[in-house]
Amino acid sequence: MTEKKIREILALVEAGGLSADRALARLKYLPFEDLGFARLDHHRGLRRGLPEVVFGEGKTANQIAAIGKRMAAAGVNLLITRLAPDKARMLKRKLRGLAYRPDAQIGTIIREPPEIRGHGTVMILSAGTSDIPVAEEAAVCAEVFGNPVERLYDVGVAGLHRLTASADAIQRASVLIVVAGMEGALPSVVSGLIDKPVIAVPTSIGYGASLGGIAALLGMLNSCSSGVTVVNIDNGFGAAFAATMINRVGLESGRD
Amino acid sequence: MTEKKIREILALVEAGGLSADRALARLKYLPFEDLGFARLDHHRGLRRGLPEVVFGEGKTANQIAAIGKRMAAAGVNLLITRLAPDKARMLKRKLRGLAYRPDAQIGTIIREPPEIRGHGTVMILSAGTSDIPVAEEAAVCAEVFGNPVERLYDVGVAGLHRLTASADAIQRASVLIVVAGMEGALPSVVSGLIDKPVIAVPTSIGYGASLGGIAALLGMLNSCSSGVTVVNIDNGFGAAFAATMINRVGLESGRD
Amino acid sequence: MTEKKIREILALVEAGGLSADRALARLKYLPFEDLGFARLDHHRGLRRGLPEVVFGEGKTANQIAAIGKRMAAAGVNLLITRLAPDKARMLKRKLRGLAYRPDAQIGTIIREPPEIRGHGTVMILSAGTSDIPVAEEAAVCAEVFGNPVERLYDVGVAGLHRLTASADAIQRASVLIVVAGMEGALPSVVSGLIDKPVIAVPTSIGYGASLGGIAALLGMLNSCSSGVTVVNIDNGFGAAFAATMINRVGLESGRD
Amino acid sequence: MTEKKIREILALVEAGGLSADRALARLKYLPFEDLGFARLDHHRGLRRGLPEVVFGEGKTANQIAAIGKRMAAAGVNLLITRLAPDKARMLKRKLRGLAYRPDAQIGTIIREPPEIRGHGTVMILSAGTSDIPVAEEAAVCAEVFGNPVERLYDVGVAGLHRLTASADAIQRASVLIVVAGMEGALPSVVSGLIDKPVIAVPTSIGYGASLGGIAALLGMLNSCSSGVTVVNIDNGFGAAFAATMINRVGLESGRD
Amino acid sequence: MTEKKIREILALVEAGGLSADRALARLKYLPFEDLGFARLDHHRGLRRGLPEVVFGEGKTANQIAAIGKRMAAAGVNLLITRLAPDKARMLKRKLRGLAYRPDAQIGTIIREPPEIRGHGTVMILSAGTSDIPVAEEAAVCAEVFGNPVERLYDVGVAGLHRLTASADAIQRASVLIVVAGMEGALPSVVSGLIDKPVIAVPTSIGYGASLGGIAALLGMLNSCSSGVTVVNIDNGFGAAFAATMINRVGLESGRD
Amino acid sequence: MTEKKIREILALVEAGGLSADRALARLKYLPFEDLGFARLDHHRGLRRGLPEVVFGEGKTANQIAAIGKRMAAAGVNLLITRLAPDKARMLKRKLRGLAYRPDAQIGTIIREPPEIRGHGTVMILSAGTSDIPVAEEAAVCAEVFGNPVERLYDVGVAGLHRLTASADAIQRASVLIVVAGMEGALPSVVSGLIDKPVIAVPTSIGYGASLGGIAALLGMLNSCSSGVTVVNIDNGFGAAFAATMINRVGLESGRD
Amino acid sequence: MTEKKIREILALVEAGGLSADRALARLKYLPFEDLGFARLDHHRGLRRGLPEVVFGEGKTANQIAAIGKRMAAAGVNLLITRLAPDKARMLKRKLRGLAYRPDAQIGTIIREPPEIRGHGTVMILSAGTSDIPVAEEAAVCAEVFGNPVERLYDVGVAGLHRLTASADAIQRASVLIVVAGMEGALPSVVSGLIDKPVIAVPTSIGYGASLGGIAALLGMLNSCSSGVTVVNIDNGFGAAFAATMINRVGLESGRD
Amino acid sequence: MTEKKIREILALVEAGGLSADRALARLKYLPFEDLGFARLDHHRGLRRGLPEVVFGEGKTANQIAAIGKRMAAAGVNLLITRLAPDKARMLKRKLRGLAYRPDAQIGTIIREPPEIRGHGTVMILSAGTSDIPVAEEAAVCAEVFGNPVERLYDVGVAGLHRLTASADAIQRASVLIVVAGMEGALPSVVSGLIDKPVIAVPTSIGYGASLGGIAALLGMLNSCSSGVTVVNIDNGFGAAFAATMINRVGLESGRD
Repeated sequence: MTEKKIREILALVEAGGLSADRALARLKYLPFEDLGFARLDHHRGLRRGLPEVVFGEGKTANQIAAIGKRMAAAGVNLLITRLAPDKARMLKRKLRGLAYRPDAQIGTIIREPPEIRGHGTVMILSAGTSDIPVAEEAAVCAEVFGNPVERLYDVGVAGLHRLTASADAIQRASVLIVVAGMEGALPSVVSGLIDKPVIAVPTSIGYGASLGGIAALLGMLNSCSSGVTVVNIDNGFGAAFAATMINRVGLESGRD
Repeated sequence: MTEKKIREILALVEAGGLSADRALARLKYLPFEDLGFARLDHHRGLRRGLPEVVFGEGKTANQIAAIGKRMAAAGVNLLITRLAPDKARMLKRKLRGLAYRPDAQIGTIIREPPEIRGHGTVMILSAGTSDIPVAEEAAVCAEVFGNPVERLYDVGVAGLHRLTASADAIQRASVLIVVAGMEGALPSVVSGLIDKPVIAVPTSIGYGASLGGIAALLGMLNSCSSGVTVVNIDNGFGAAFAATMINRVGLESGRD
Repeated sequence: MTEKKIREILALVEAGGLSADRALARLKYLPFEDLGFARLDHHRGLRRGLPEVVFGEGKTANQIAAIGKRMAAAGVNLLITRLAPDKARMLKRKLRGLAYRPDAQIGTIIREPPEIRGHGTVMILSAGTSDIPVAEEAAVCAEVFGNPVERLYDVGVAGLHRLTASADAIQRASVLIVVAGMEGALPSVVSGLIDKPVIAVPTSIGYGASLGGIAALLGMLNSCSSGVTVVNIDNGFGAAFAATMINRVGLESGRD
Repeated sequence: MTEKKIREILALVEAGGLSADRALARLKYLPFEDLGFARLDHHRGLRRGLPEVVFGEGKTANQIAAIGKRMAAAGVNLLITRLAPDKARMLKRKLRGLAYRPDAQIGTIIREPPEIRGHGTVMILSAGTSDIPVAEEAAVCAEVFGNPVERLYDVGVAGLHRLTASADAIQRASVLIVVAGMEGALPSVVSGLIDKPVIAVPTSIGYGASLGGIAALLGMLNSCSSGVTVVNIDNGFGAAFAATMINRVGLESGRD
Repeated sequence: MTEKKIREILALVEAGGLSADRALARLKYLPFEDLGFARLDHHRGLRRGLPEVVFGEGKTANQIAAIGKRMAAAGVNLLITRLAPDKARMLKRKLRGLAYRPDAQIGTIIREPPEIRGHGTVMILSAGTSDIPVAEEAAVCAEVFGNPVERLYDVGVAGLHRLTASADAIQRASVLIVVAGMEGALPSVVSGLIDKPVIAVPTSIGYGASLGGIAALLGMLNSCSSGVTVVNIDNGFGAAFAATMINRVGLESGRD
Repeated sequence: MTEKKIREILALVEAGGLSADRALARLKYLPFEDLGFARLDHHRGLRRGLPEVVFGEGKTANQIAAIGKRMAAAGVNLLITRLAPDKARMLKRKLRGLAYRPDAQIGTIIREPPEIRGHGTVMILSAGTSDIPVAEEAAVCAEVFGNPVERLYDVGVAGLHRLTASADAIQRASVLIVVAGMEGALPSVVSGLIDKPVIAVPTSIGYGASLGGIAALLGMLNSCSSGVTVVNIDNGFGAAFAATMINRVGLESGRD
Repeated sequence: MTEKKIREILALVEAGGLSADRALARLKYLPFEDLGFARLDHHRGLRRGLPEVVFGEGKTANQIAAIGKRMAAAGVNLLITRLAPDKARMLKRKLRGLAYRPDAQIGTIIREPPEIRGHGTVMILSAGTSDIPVAEEAAVCAEVFGNPVERLYDVGVAGLHRLTASADAIQRASVLIVVAGMEGALPSVVSGLIDKPVIAVPTSIGYGASLGGIAALLGMLNSCSSGVTVVNIDNGFGAAFAATMINRVGLESGRD
Repeated sequence: MTEKKIREILALVEAGGLSADRALARLKYLPFEDLGFARLDHHRGLRRGLPEVVFGEGKTANQIAAIGKRMAAAGVNLLITRLAPDKARMLKRKLRGLAYRPDAQIGTIIREPPEIRGHGTVMILSAGTSDIPVAEEAAVCAEVFGNPVERLYDVGVAGLHRLTASADAIQRASVLIVVAGMEGALPSVVSGLIDKPVIAVPTSIGYGASLGGIAALLGMLNSCSSGVTVVNIDNGFGAAFAATMINRVGLESGRD
C-alpha cells in the first residue's frame, strides 16, 4: 500500500465518498496483517516506495492465492516471481486479473499502471541466449517498478563486436543490469566502457565446473573493473529492485 | 586525467601560458602509456569520471613509485589502496606529497581537492569495531572521489538500539555502504528500514566457520531484504567506487 | 519405555493385575531388541527421559511399520519425523491410531498424553513463510515431548517491526527455537533482545548462493550475538529435543 | 553494568553516600557510549544478565585498553577473550588489576566476585590434550559468569573406558560442554549417555582433511545423538555463554 | 578367469576332454577382449585373485548384457553392483542364471561356488538402519569373494550398549568393515576396542550439513583412533575387495 | 559462414550466376543477425575457421529450430551438441536434413562435407566404458571440424597393459584427447609416454567423493606429467575445438 | 604397556626380584593415568598390540616431556611423530635416550628392540621426491612397530618405466603403502598390478588446485582400481599403523 | 639428455675422441639414475623432446644441487622453477654457471643454446601487473624450450582498448598463453578474436572471494569462448611446456 493510496483513502473519507467504517476496514491491515503463515507488510510500500513482492517458489498455490487476495483487498499491485507455469494455471482460477509472463516466470495483477520515475533507462544485458529467463525476470520487474527498460541480449564476450555495436545505447543508460552465466565476464567488460552503476547477476547456466552459477558469481565478485556490485545467482528480481533504488537516488519520494 | 584537466591544458596553450612542446609532453601519455609492467590508462578518468587508483598489495614499492611518478607528471590526484605501513614509509621518500592514512591503509597525493558532486551523502556503517579498517577504506575513497561522507560504526545487529538510535541519519543518506563480518546480517536490517541503495561489504573478520569472510559474503548475497548488492570481501574501495557512480546517476558529467 | 511405564508393569504384577509371564513378555524387550535391521532401544526413554523417535526418510514403509508395531507392543508413544504424505497413507493402513500432521510431515501414535514438564514455554519463531514446515516439525515435536509451545511466524529481519511488536511474548519464553533460511540472521537479532537460550535452525530455503542452507548455517555459527547454538539444516526435531533438555534443567526426573 | 549495580548507585544517592553529580557521571554512560570505534553497551548486562565481553583478537592493545578503562569507570567486571600473551603483557601496564590466564588466553579484571547462580554444575569435557586451550576458554568464562565448573579432559572416543570411568560425574552435571577436534565424535557418545543439554565445540585441532575444524563441525552438526547443539569452531566463550543461559532457565533474574 | 580355471582348461585338453579348438576358443579372450565400448580383462582374475566385477550404474542394460555374455562364455562367476531393480528385471531376460539381491542392489551369476579362503571372518557393522543397503553391498561382495561373513547392524554410537553387547564377536573377527553415515563416528569407537584392521565406509545417509556423505567421510579420515582406513562414500564393494585382500595376506595364492 | 562461402557468393555474382539482390539477401546476415533471443555470428566462421555450434542444453526446441533455419539459410553446416533424444525427435520435424548421433547426443546438418585439414590424426582415449558419451562428443565434433579421428576406449590405468598394447597408435597421433572420470589419472600416464599435446577432459562419471567430476578435474589440473591442459567437466566439444586449433597450427588458413 | 611387560612384572614378583610395593608403583598407572592434561592409556598396548604414540604437533615441549617421562617410568618404547627439529632439540635435554630422525620428523626412545612380526614386508612407495618426508614417517613407524620395511621412492606415473622396473619387488611385498601428492594417481596404478592390500596416503605436496592435498585425497578415494583404502593427508603414521594391523591378520597375538 | 646428445657421444667414440670407458660413464645414467630421493630420468628428453625440469619449491638447496650436478655431468641444460631468491643464492655457490631470473623465479644452466623450433611465436599476455611473475615463468620457460616469444602485459578486460591496440600482433602468434587472476576473463576475450590455440593460466592474484586463484580457474574452465584449455593456478611452466608441444605439432622431431 503506497502512501498515495493511504492519502486517497483519507481524501475519500474527507470528501464523503467513503464511510469511516469502510475506511477503517481498509486501513486496519496496517501496519501488517497476520495470516498465521505470513505477515503481510502493507506498510512496506510506504517505507521502500515499491509494492510487496511474493516469492512464488517456496509457496503452495493456496498460500499464494491467500496472500494475493489480501493484497488485492488492499488495492495494491501484485508481483509474483518464480511462478512455475503449472502453478500459474492453478492461480489464474483463484486470482482474478492475474497476467502471466512465461519467459520471466512472473505473474502480475496490475490495478493501476506503475508511475514512471527515475533518472533514465534501466538497461538489461544478457551474455547468452540461455541467460534470458533471468534477464527477463529483471526486465519485467524493473518495468512494474516504474522504470523505462531497454534490453540487449546475447552479447557475450566471446564476440566483442556484438557488444561494441551497441556502445551508444549502453552509454545512454542510467543503470545497467548485466546477466551472465558460465565465467560471468560480461559485467567487467561493460563496466570498463562506462561510468554508470553496473549490477551483475550471475546465472546458473553452465555445467560441470560452473557449479550451478558459483563460477560466474565468483568471477563477478572478483571483477577487475571497479564498481561492479553483485546479487545472488539467478536473482533478476533483486537486481531490478536495486536498480530502481539507484535510478531514484536524489529524487523526491514519488508518492505525492 | 579528467576532461577538465585536458581542457585546462588546452586553454593554457591557447592563452599562451604553456608552450606547445610542454603541452605535448603532458598529453602524449594519452591514451595509455606502457611502462612495460603496467599500462597507465590516463583516459580512464575521462571514461569513468574518476582518477586511476593503484592497488598496492600485489606491487613492490618501486613499481608503485614508478606508476605514481608518471601519474604525478600527468598532474592527476593519486590514490593507493592496501598500502601497508612499512611500504608507505618507503614510498614517502620516493613520492613527494604522499599522505598516508594508517587506519584505512591508503596513501594519497592530492594535487587539487576533489570537486564535491552527487545527490547527497554516502553513509558508511560498520557492524563491529574490527570491521573499521575496511569501513575506513570505503570512507576515505568516497571522500577522495568527491562525495560527502558520514560514518556510523559498531552498530551490529546484536544490539539493535544502537542502530535505531541513528535511524534519522540513516534515512537522510543518499547511498549506504554497510560493512560487516561474521554473519553479515547488518545490511539486511538496514535495507529493511529505508528505500535507498545499500552496498554490502563482507569483511574477513571472524574465525572458524567464518571461512575468511565467505560466511558474511554468503549471508549478504542471500539477504532477505530486497535490493542489497554486494562486493568482494574487504573491498571497501570497490564499494566506494560503486557508491560514487550511484550518487551521480542522472547528473551531468561534472567535468565542465 | 519410560521408567514410569516399568514401574506400572511391576506394580501391576504386585497387585495381581498382570501375570508374571505377560510381564516378562513386555519386559523382555529390554534393554534392546534386535529386528535384524534395527535395534530398538526401549531403555533409551529411561536414560534420556523421552520416547524413541523414528526418522522416516531413510526407511521403507514396511520397516517403519515393523518398528512401530514393536514399540506399540511395548506401550510407548510413537513419533515419526520426515514422513512423506504418500508413505503416511500406506502406514495408516498398517499402524492403528496413527495421526498425521502434513504441515510438519510428522506421524504420531499417542497412547498416553505427554506429561507437561519444564520451566516454561518453548517459543518457535520463523523468519519466513517458507520456513514454516521446519518450524512446525520443531513445534509438534516439542509438544509431544511435553512442553508448552508458542509460535511466531514470518518475522524476518527485513521488517523488524513485525518482530518487535511481539517483544513481550519473546521475553516471557523459557527457551527459543529460531528457524530461518537465506542469510539466517534472525537468531542474532532475537538473541540480542533477551537473556534466554536460543537454538538456531537453518533451513534449506533459498537458491543459488544459499547452497541448500549452508549460507544460513554459516551465518548462525558466526552469530555476533553471544550464546546462540545451532543444529543441522532443517533439523526441527533436533532443536525440539535440545529445547526439551534445556527446559528441564534442574528439575527432578519426571518419571515418578 | 548489572541491574544490581544500578540499584546500588541509586541506593548510595538515597543514603547520601554519593552526590547526584557523581551518580550522574556513572549513569550517563547509559544506554551506550560512543568511543568512535566502539559503542559500549552498558545496558547489555541488564538485558542479558552478564557483563560485556571484549573479543581481543581483532583489536589493538590500545583499543582494548580504551574500552577496558571505560568499563572500569563504570565499575563492571571485565573479561577479554583471545588475548595473546604479548598483547596481555602490554595491557597489564595500562589496565590495573588485570589478571591473565595463558592456558585460556583470557584476561580478567574482577571487581566483585561473580554471584554463583544456576541449577547445577557446568561440566567441560575435552577429547584430547590439544583441545584443552579451547576447553579452558569455556571453563574460565563459565566460572566468571557465575557457574560451578568441573573439568574432564582427554577422554576421546578411541579409549571409551576413560570416559565411562567418569560416568557418574557426567550424569550429575547440569549442562555439558564437549570440546573435540579431528572427527568430533565425543559429543555424540556423551549425549547418548545422559538426558542433559550438550553443547558441542569443534576445535581446529587436526591436519589435512580436518580442514581447520570443518570436519569436526560437520560431524557435530550431523550427530546421530539427538539434542546436541553446536557453536563455531574454537568458540569456547560462546559455549560458556550459552551454558550459562541454560543453567539459569526458569530461575528468577538474579539481580535483586 | 581365475588361474584355476586356466589350469582346468589345459588339464581338460591334456586329458582329452576338450579339443584344442574349443580350448582355443575359450583362451583366445586372453589377455583382454575389445567389445568396442569395453575391454574385458579376463586376466585380471589371474593378477588380483578375484573375478571381474561390473559396475552397473553407468551402463545400459544392453551393455551389461553384452559384457555378461562374454564373461559367461569364459566360464567365470559374474558380479554386478549398483544394479537398480528395473534394470535387473530387464537383465534377467537376457542373462540366464542371474540372481538378484535387492537389499544390496547386486546381481550375480554363480557358476561355481566361491572357494572359502582367508584368515577368518569379515565382519560388517552398520551404524543405523538406513546404512544397511551399503553394508549389504559389502557383505554380499565379501561372500562372493570367498570370505566367511558376519553382520552386526544398527549399533551406532548414540547407544554404546548395543555395540558393547557384541564385543566378543567383534574381537574374534579377522577384518572389520564399518559402515556409517551422518557423523561417521562408529569406526573410531570400534577401532579403539580391537587390534584388527578396520575399513570405514561413509554413506550418503543424512541431510543438510551431511553434504551427501562428505561429513561422514571427513570424520572417518580424521579418526582419532589409529589405523582406520577409508573408501569412497557408499563404496561397499570397494571395502569388500580390500577386506578380501587383507584377509588373505600371507596366504599362498589360492588357485592351486 | 566460411570465407570460402563468401568468396563463392561473390564469384557467383561476378559470373552472373547470382543476382545482386539475392547475394545481398545472403550477405546481409553479416556481421551478425539479431533474432531477439540470439545474435547469430556468421562472421565467426571467418574469424575462427570453424562453423558456429549450437549448445542444445539450455535452449528450447523452438529456439534451436529458429537458429538452425537462419543458419541453413546462410548455407553453413550445423552442429548441435547436448541434444537430448526427445528434443532431437521434435527437431527432426522442423529441420530438414538433421542427422542425430545418440551416443554423442549430437545433431548435425551437413551441407558440404568438412574439408580434411591438419597435421595428423586426433586420437580420443577414454578411461572407462561410462566415459564414452563424452568421448564420442569429442570424436564426432573433431570429425565435423575436419580432422582425421581415431578412438581408443576403456584403457584406464587400473589395467595398464590395455593402454601399452596400443602404444604405437598413441605415438603416431598428432593431438590426443584423453577422457576420464573418477580419479582422472589417465592423461598423466598417456602424457608421460609421448611428446604430443594432451587435452584432458574430466567426466562426471563416479559417485560420492567424485563430486560430479570435480575429483577428476582436480586430478588433471594437478597432473605430475608436464604439458597436460584441461577443459571443463564433460566438455567433449571444447576439447575437439581446441584440438582442431592445435592440429592446424602453422598451416595456411584453409579457406582459399 | 604390553601384556608381555605385565607378565614380566608379575613373574619378577613371583620370583622375588621385585617387591610388591615397587610392582604396585608400576602397575598403579593402570588402566590409565590422569596427568590433568592427558590420560595416559597404558592398557592400550594390551588392547591394540602396539605402544602408545605421541602426536607432537599440538603439544608443547613440556607436555611431551611430561608424557614421555611417565611412559619411560612404565618401561615402554616411545614414538613421537610430527616433532619439529627445534622442539626435538629442547626435548633431548629433558628425555634421556631420545633419538631423532629429521627426515621423518620422528623422535623415539627404544628400550627394547621391537619384535619382528607379520606375514612379510611392508613396502613404501613415493610418487615424487617431495613426498619423501611423509613416506619416511610411514617407514620409520612401520619399523618401530616391528615390520620388515622396503622403500621405493620417486616412481610417479609420469614415468611408468621407473615403476615397472621394480615390479618384482612390488609383487613380493605383503602390504603396500603408496604415498603421492598432486593428482595422487600412483596407488591406482600400483594396485592394478598386484593382489595385495594397498594403503594410499595423499600428501599436501602441490600448489594451486591441489588445495593442500585435497586433490590427491579425492583422486585416491575415487580410484578406479578396486581395493585401495585411504588415510588422511600426510598421515604416514596412520598408514603404518594400519599396515601393521594388516600384516598381522590371522597371527597369534605376539605377546606370549 | 636429448637424442642429439646421445648421437654425439656415439659419434665421438666412433671418431676416437672419447674412450669407450668415458662414453660408458656418461651413458650409464640411462635409463634413469637412482639418487635414493630422486630418480633422474635422462631418457625423458628423448621421449618428450625437452630437458628435465626441476621443481624447486618442495626441495632443499642440497637436494637441488645434487640433482643439478648429476644432470650437469650428463651434459644437459638445466631449468629450475619456483626457485626463491635466497635458495638461489645458496645454489649459486654449489652449481657453477647457474643464472637466476628473479622476476620469473627461475634458475638455468645453459650449456648449449636451445635450438629454435616450432611453427611460429608463442605470445604471453598478462591481465595485470601483479600477474607478471607467472607470465615471466611461462615466457622464460618457453624461451629455454626453443620457442620465439613475445610479451604483452597489463591488457586486462577492464580497458579493452589496451588489448585491441595490439590486435595485429595477437593474430600473428602461433600459440597464446593468457595469464590472469581475479575473474580470469581475459582468455575468453582473446580467444574470441583469433583462431589459434589459447592456453589459460589462472593466477593466485586477488583476495577474498578469489579463493587463491580458484575464481580465475573456474572462470577459465567455464569460458564461453570455445577452445580455451587451462592449466593449474600459477603454473606458467606447464603452460610453456604445453605451448611448446603445440608449436611443434606436425614437425619432424628436431633431434637429427
